[in-house]
Order: sequence, then C-alpha cells, then structure tokens
Amino acid sequence: MKFIHSILLLFVLFSLAAHAATPRAEIDAFNQKFLDATLKMDNAASLALWADDGVSLLPNTAPIAGKKAIAKFLDDVIAQIAGYKVTGQVNDFHDIQVSGDWATEWGTTHQSIQPPDGKPMMEIYGKILLVLHREKDGWHIAQEMWNSAPKP
Amino acid sequence: MKFIHSILLLFVLFSLAAHAATPRAEIDAFNQKFLDATLKMDNAASLALWADDGVSLLPNTAPIAGKKAIAKFLDDVIAQIAGYKVTGQVNDFHDIQVSGDWATEWGTTHQSIQPPDGKPMMEIYGKILLVLHREKDGWHIAQEMWNSAPKP
Repeated sequence: MKFIHSILLLFVLFSLAAHAATPRAEIDAFNQKFLDATLKMDNAASLALWADDGVSLLPNTAPIAGKKAIAKFLDDVIAQIAGYKVTGQVNDFHDIQVSGDWATEWGTTHQSIQPPDGKPMMEIYGKILLVLHREKDGWHIAQEMWNSAPKP
Repeated sequence: MKFIHSILLLFVLFSLAAHAATPRAEIDAFNQKFLDATLKMDNAASLALWADDGVSLLPNTAPIAGKKAIAKFLDDVIAQIAGYKVTGQVNDFHDIQVSGDWATEWGTTHQSIQPPDGKPMMEIYGKILLVLHREKDGWHIAQEMWNSAPKP
C-alpha cells in the first residue's frame, strides 16, 4: 500500500508540475513580471522581458527596433520623467492566444502617476497589443503596440 | 516517354499548388486584399477580412469588439468622410510570423487622402499591428491596432 501511495503522490506531483508549465500559466507569469516592472519603473526588468529583435510601436514615434534601441528609449523616458512616480497600473488582458512558440494578447491599461511638487495625479488610459515569443529562457516581447483610450 | 512527361507535369503542378498554399503566400494574399479594400474604401470587402470575434484597437477609441460593432464603425467613418477619397495607400509589413492557425505582422503605413472642394491633400503616416487567424475560408483579422507615426 505504501508503494501505491508513493506512486499516487508522484502522479499528483507530476500533474501539478505539468499544470504549472501550461502556456496559459506561463503567459500569466509573464504578465505579472510585465506589471511589476512598470510599477517599479525598473528599466532592467522591463528590458529583460524583450526579445533581442523586438519592436516597440508607440504613438507618434517611429518603430523602435532591437533591444539596444529599446534600452536607450527606456533610459530617455526615465530621465525625462525624473520625480514622477507610477503609483498604480492595471493591465486587463483579453484573448490570450498561444500557438506553438508564439502568443498574442491585447489589453486595456490604466496608469496612475504622481508628479513631483504635489501636482495633481495623472490618470492615463490606454490599450496594448502584445506579440510574445517563447525562447530558451521563457516568453519575450516580439512586438508591443500602445495607443490611447477614453476613460471607461 | 509520354507517361514520364505526364508524371513530371503532375509533379510541377503539385509543386506550384503547394507553393501557392504556403502560409507566407497566404498572408501576402491577405495583405493585398487588405490594401485593395482600403484603396477602394470598400466596407463590405474590409468587413469580410474580419473574424466574427475580431477586435479593432484604434487611437482615442474604446476597443471595438465583434464584426457587428466593426461594421457600424466602418459605416460611420464612411459617412463622416463623405467626399474624401483615398488616392494612395502603402502598407510596408515586417516580421510576418505564422504559427499554426495564427499569424502576426506589423507595418508602417502611409495614406494619401484627397479632401473635397480642392482642399490640399492629406498625408497620414501610421503604424499597424495585426493578429490574424486562419479559418475555414482563409485568414481573418483577430485583432488590429493602429497608431500614428512621424513622417519618415
């Protein structure tokens, strides 16, 4: 009986491990890292989410192609908004679709930013579309596009 | 010899058929239809490219979800721009990626519009990100996002 219990326990553990590795769970984990990096304004963590040949497609901006260009862009943004603090970020993703090593999802976003010197809070509403690629060390951003949205 | 010629001919024909059906060729054909529908301002042709549960993500606009809502949006746009004519459209797509029944591509876009009453031409530069889904009758738009771009 002890042997059968051990076999059953192994089966349960393997099932849990398999479940943890479902593509959907992997994308959920990616989304959590993506959210955390934004909330912490952590450029190194943001950059680590990108594929080497990723392309960022931002409003009123030429395509930003490649990790090196994206790193420079992120550094420039942080320099420009010195003193500003992201106090809230809600990303509500929909239609998460995984096909092989590729995944897509779109979302509505709401960012709350506290400017310096006690100026009023900024509430920024937007939308995002992500194309993700699974590499050896997990999912990375192949393309990211943003645009604005009205307050819901 | 005649038999061998027939076999060779069959082989060539099958090769051509196989080539025509490569996913990349299918996406190129989709892109041509997408371009033609825009140039002709043909809402029926545009709508036919959409998946039933497709979502359009346009700047300063809430997500437009489902073919019925997209049809209404297209009709409203055409009504609002009565007298305007699309005289040119260039979509330059990059990173076309097909994985199973899903595909993604992003592009830069340049639209030339002739307003009514001899007003000066409008040159509109933008970017697009498309998620496509292969259905029984071919590729359809699952999600589409646009934003603006500076003049290159």
